[in-house]
Amino acid sequence: MSNTLRIIPIGGLGEVGKNMMAIEYDHKVLVIDAGLMFPESDMLGIDYIFPDFPYLLDRDDLDLLAILITHGHEDHCGALTHVLEKLPTSPPVYATRLTGGLLEVKLKAAKLFGQVRLHIFEAGDLLRFGPFTVEPFHQAHSIPDSVGFGITTPAGLIIHTGDFKFDYTPTDGHPPDFAKLAEFGGRGVLALMSDSTNALRAGWTPSESAIDEGFERVFRGAAGRIIVATFASHISRIQQAANAARRHGRKVAVTGFSMVENLKMATRLGYLNLPPDLVIPLDQVGSLPPDKILILSTGTQGEPSAVLSRLAQGRHQQLKIERGDTVIMSAHVIPGNEEMVGRTVNRLIQRGADVYYDPIEQVHVSGHPSVDELKLMLNLVRPKYFIPIHGELRQLTQHARIAEKVGIPRENIAVVENGTPVEFTDGKMTIGERLPGGYVFVDGAGVGDVGPTVLHDREHLGRDGFVLAIVTLDAESGDLLLAPELISRGFVYMPDAEDLFAGARDRILQIISDDGQSTRKKQAERIEAALEKFFRQETGRRPMVFVHLNAV
Amino acid sequence: MSNTLRIIPIGGLGEVGKNMMAIEYDHKVLVIDAGLMFPESDMLGIDYIFPDFPYLLDRDDLDLLAILITHGHEDHCGALTHVLEKLPTSPPVYATRLTGGLLEVKLKAAKLFGQVRLHIFEAGDLLRFGPFTVEPFHQAHSIPDSVGFGITTPAGLIIHTGDFKFDYTPTDGHPPDFAKLAEFGGRGVLALMSDSTNALRAGWTPSESAIDEGFERVFRGAAGRIIVATFASHISRIQQAANAARRHGRKVAVTGFSMVENLKMATRLGYLNLPPDLVIPLDQVGSLPPDKILILSTGTQGEPSAVLSRLAQGRHQQLKIERGDTVIMSAHVIPGNEEMVGRTVNRLIQRGADVYYDPIEQVHVSGHPSVDELKLMLNLVRPKYFIPIHGELRQLTQHARIAEKVGIPRENIAVVENGTPVEFTDGKMTIGERLPGGYVFVDGAGVGDVGPTVLHDREHLGRDGFVLAIVTLDAESGDLLLAPELISRGFVYMPDAEDLFAGARDRILQIISDDGQSTRKKQAERIEAALEKFFRQETGRRPMVFVHLNAV
Repeated sequence: MSNTLRIIPIGGLGEVGKNMMAIEYDHKVLVIDAGLMFPESDMLGIDYIFPDFPYLLDRDDLDLLAILITHGHEDHCGALTHVLEKLPTSPPVYATRLTGGLLEVKLKAAKLFGQVRLHIFEAGDLLRFGPFTVEPFHQAHSIPDSVGFGITTPAGLIIHTGDFKFDYTPTDGHPPDFAKLAEFGGRGVLALMSDSTNALRAGWTPSESAIDEGFERVFRGAAGRIIVATFASHISRIQQAANAARRHGRKVAVTGFSMVENLKMATRLGYLNLPPDLVIPLDQVGSLPPDKILILSTGTQGEPSAVLSRLAQGRHQQLKIERGDTVIMSAHVIPGNEEMVGRTVNRLIQRGADVYYDPIEQVHVSGHPSVDELKLMLNLVRPKYFIPIHGELRQLTQHARIAEKVGIPRENIAVVENGTPVEFTDGKMTIGERLPGGYVFVDGAGVGDVGPTVLHDREHLGRDGFVLAIVTLDAESGDLLLAPELISRGFVYMPDAEDLFAGARDRILQIISDDGQSTRKKQAERIEAALEKFFRQETGRRPMVFVHLNAV
Repeated sequence: MSNTLRIIPIGGLGEVGKNMMAIEYDHKVLVIDAGLMFPESDMLGIDYIFPDFPYLLDRDDLDLLAILITHGHEDHCGALTHVLEKLPTSPPVYATRLTGGLLEVKLKAAKLFGQVRLHIFEAGDLLRFGPFTVEPFHQAHSIPDSVGFGITTPAGLIIHTGDFKFDYTPTDGHPPDFAKLAEFGGRGVLALMSDSTNALRAGWTPSESAIDEGFERVFRGAAGRIIVATFASHISRIQQAANAARRHGRKVAVTGFSMVENLKMATRLGYLNLPPDLVIPLDQVGSLPPDKILILSTGTQGEPSAVLSRLAQGRHQQLKIERGDTVIMSAHVIPGNEEMVGRTVNRLIQRGADVYYDPIEQVHVSGHPSVDELKLMLNLVRPKYFIPIHGELRQLTQHARIAEKVGIPRENIAVVENGTPVEFTDGKMTIGERLPGGYVFVDGAGVGDVGPTVLHDREHLGRDGFVLAIVTLDAESGDLLLAPELISRGFVYMPDAEDLFAGARDRILQIISDDGQSTRKKQAERIEAALEKFFRQETGRRPMVFVHLNAV
């Protein structure tokens, strides 16, 4: 099938093609994005995850030509260092200038800078890789210098939108490239892959400029310090907050390593305009009146270790929330984080802050296209086939319904999950067999050493705790040498459960005396089963039970 | 302070006064509601929680006159059996007819029916309890027979709205009692306590009748079976689904114990109108064509053991989701459950179902008042003082802002957390000292035996797992009798971590040989510290480490 074009979203469950995609033709592969995901709430103890790609590693016949990055958000480029470390070859990485700057910060932090061939391109360039000709085109999104890709392949022209919104008044004055999209449409597009994040949201996403009005209202009403929390990579939002500070005679102090580094980089590259006298070091915040201060921080997701959560809990070394402070949560809440974010807001209010966030003030807008924008994209590009990407099945099926309404025949739409290739041969689309894949878990210093078994045990331990019985026997007689000891955590409060554990010890003694002739393995198994049953009956819970039989 | 009226929301963090409130005057107490809460996501392994009320238990001088229930939802009456079991006296319980019916089902399931003095009242009745005269008034909500309470106390008239919405066209044809609210307003109201759940939502909540249109659209388009998922107590929604089934010639099958029981009870009491030929047993579903079937189920929150989740995972014994099935999620998502619900929807789609839920079709509306309704309530009742309830601090502060806009002076508004009494003496409001309290955790058969220590251990075990070292020494010489054994779960995948554990065993041997003269307790502590440090350095994680030193 060397004349087959394959489009493969890479990863496990979750948002399809969000973190990584592969485009394959005649044994040549382009990879688009290398991003990370935050763990779902039952992936206990995991810091973050990134796509696994045995597809790329196991096939010797494949030639990986390049990794192209659409934009500088973590979910699209945050796993680059891990991906490069796993790959046997070191393909060149292509990114726009700001995205490249953000990658540079990351590579330096990972001590990998200089080892990666990082190429900077601009929207409008023409990049050639084997059978592929790539035309990056400018997209408006919530970070500057975002692009989508038109990729001419021997099978036809395919379009990858990247993340986008049709923002007529973006903060950087650089609206979407409607002309290019229409021109692609005129050329004839085989397949469109388009951002489905907001496929459940009717209408049109407000412009990033709408934030300026929200900030203005809050800044006008704030008598004390203002803290604006956003993502460290949200360069345009940082500019908007800084502009508001300047209008209201406030100085800007920045907290957090990644935000400080990104600010320096983006200022150097000209993507941020912060006059030197606007910015003050964090330790000078106390020397100015509160109404002259704006603090920029991270922590919009309620992450326990981020600056905002530490402020909310009174655990920040330099800063303390005081009555009269105003906090602006200027970011969307990543699904799964609603509860932690809500708690952070409650705690900030408890400490006396006025807190502004999405439903009560326009201090954040989505960076993704709503339904009417999706329809416009489909109308501009007029693809023969359509592959909704960047969403879970919910969003993808809704995006498919939208495409049907716009006139794409149902049989020309491919809703697939990560790992399932969409193949084009002789102008016809088919869905391939699902390839192996999933996610690599990163936990502390460990990359990939935590898998389903460990997660399953964590879930079990987290739910019901464990009980360990240590039984020491005389190796010859099989008699007990010491009273059985029980160690337990996370099951019941031990000081209040003496009767329960006394009962458990009785069960052990009984089995030992009944069962002197069994093998030790059998005895241990019998004790384990008896204790599991006993604890379930007595408490309705199922702690992990281990028995350690020592013979001395 | 016997001439002081105290209003006390009971519980810990979370929604204020949602599950339980106390009204105290001259040592006499009325309790309003006795509900349960679902655990937050870091309360690992907990089934549900309910308010702790040492305030009521520790004060011998208090006389608990009655427990009044506003309506039949779990968060307002689901903990009644636990509350009654904890109280030293057995106060009478007052509820409307449908709420009483739902309590009866619960009491029977807990084998407590007959032991509780359950009194049925109607909206419009006059109930006298010591110094209190209670006037229950009809409220429209998402369950029939909901009430609020006007309570005349020696300090003045106070109004508790219960949960409500201003629904002009409720499905039971029984709109809110505007006349009564206005009449209270005319009499002069000391304080209003009003539902804040939707204080962040602008406008007016759609009528429950709007669901009929949503159901109609989905039923018209469905070629196969339809499954409507909702709460078992959502009697009016069940009626709406049954009506749609009847209009479209479908029979209704019901799954799940609580839904079956509630249906029987509500039909008997006349709150549900289900002709006998409409309902079929679940095992007859297979004998009718798919387009003649409606299945009612629970599981709208993605609870792993509920019918809908089992269907989504292919783990239901009698039913299997097939291509062409339609699933309607007709309930709101309780905050914190978004991820599990999203996953359930994705899985249903994966199995071929068309799934309809709130943003893509009007198959659910909130049962709570939006901002304009809150303003109407404040305008009708015209209270001197205002206490927003039924919300977290976020919602309460926003409700307070709304009340200020409506003309209540800021100093007459009390935003308090659970446990903090609002006191009225000589017509003046003050905020009292916070009383002890919190939540009781229910885990399996255990009520209150899991506390902060156990939860903290579960969180630790769930995040990083544990390592247990078993070291057996000769009691006399202090020499090792057996090689140290390491047991670990939830930390690393042991088969791949042989080197790591070999390193850990070396650390143990070293300490034993260096340290033969220490006490055993000291040795164990040194080993523990060394292993914690070693694992942290090697893996960046912090498993719980235990050392068990046996001397034989």
